[in-house]
Amino acid sequence: MNNLFTDLPTTLPEELVEVLAENKHVRIERIVSTGQASPDGFWYDQNEAEWVVVLKGEAKLLFEDDEEPIHTKVGDRINIPAHKKHRGEWTTPDEPTVWLAMFCRAD
Amino acid sequence: MNNLFTDLPTTLPEELVEVLAENKHVRIERIVSTGQASPDGFWYDQNEAEWVVVLKGEAKLLFEDDEEPIHTKVGDRINIPAHKKHRGEWTTPDEPTVWLAMFCRAD
Repeated sequence: MNNLFTDLPTTLPEELVEVLAENKHVRIERIVSTGQASPDGFWYDQNEAEWVVVLKGEAKLLFEDDEEPIHTKVGDRINIPAHKKHRGEWTTPDEPTVWLAMFCRAD
Repeated sequence: MNNLFTDLPTTLPEELVEVLAENKHVRIERIVSTGQASPDGFWYDQNEAEWVVVLKGEAKLLFEDDEEPIHTKVGDRINIPAHKKHRGEWTTPDEPTVWLAMFCRAD
């Protein structure tokens, strides 16, 4: 898959995560959602810092400290510091949502 | 600029490079071209590995070892190892070309 918008499934049993590149410092992933959300009560609590951008579709991302989720659309980017708890509240069911995410050790 | 497609200039005297995030391991840049190409005879020879994807527009990228440039369109991604010499042969004059690039120390 040399193009981020090819091989896009339209329905998935769960989010599809593909590692596009990786070295000892950083990992780049394409993440595809087709309406998935994090399970109730689940929070990501990552050892790595994450930088993520929505390239297709729409998603709502909730940080533990916030009342309301952030509604992200195409081109919106977010920095998620390591151990900043967050969850995916919603992704659009109308089309695949494509994220490009970079994970990097915080130290 | 929290959206990669906002604040897009339509004409630029030279490529516009903005650092979106940075730590000691990695640097993420948005690069906008409006028809620019590398100067004649110029080759990038970078100490860092680069992972780059075209998010808008079109570009032709030439590696020193290749006869023909790679014609990259929206969603196309390329890994450029450190010190792999390359140049930008062409970007479309019809619209801004937006690259998202990640640079990482090779060691």
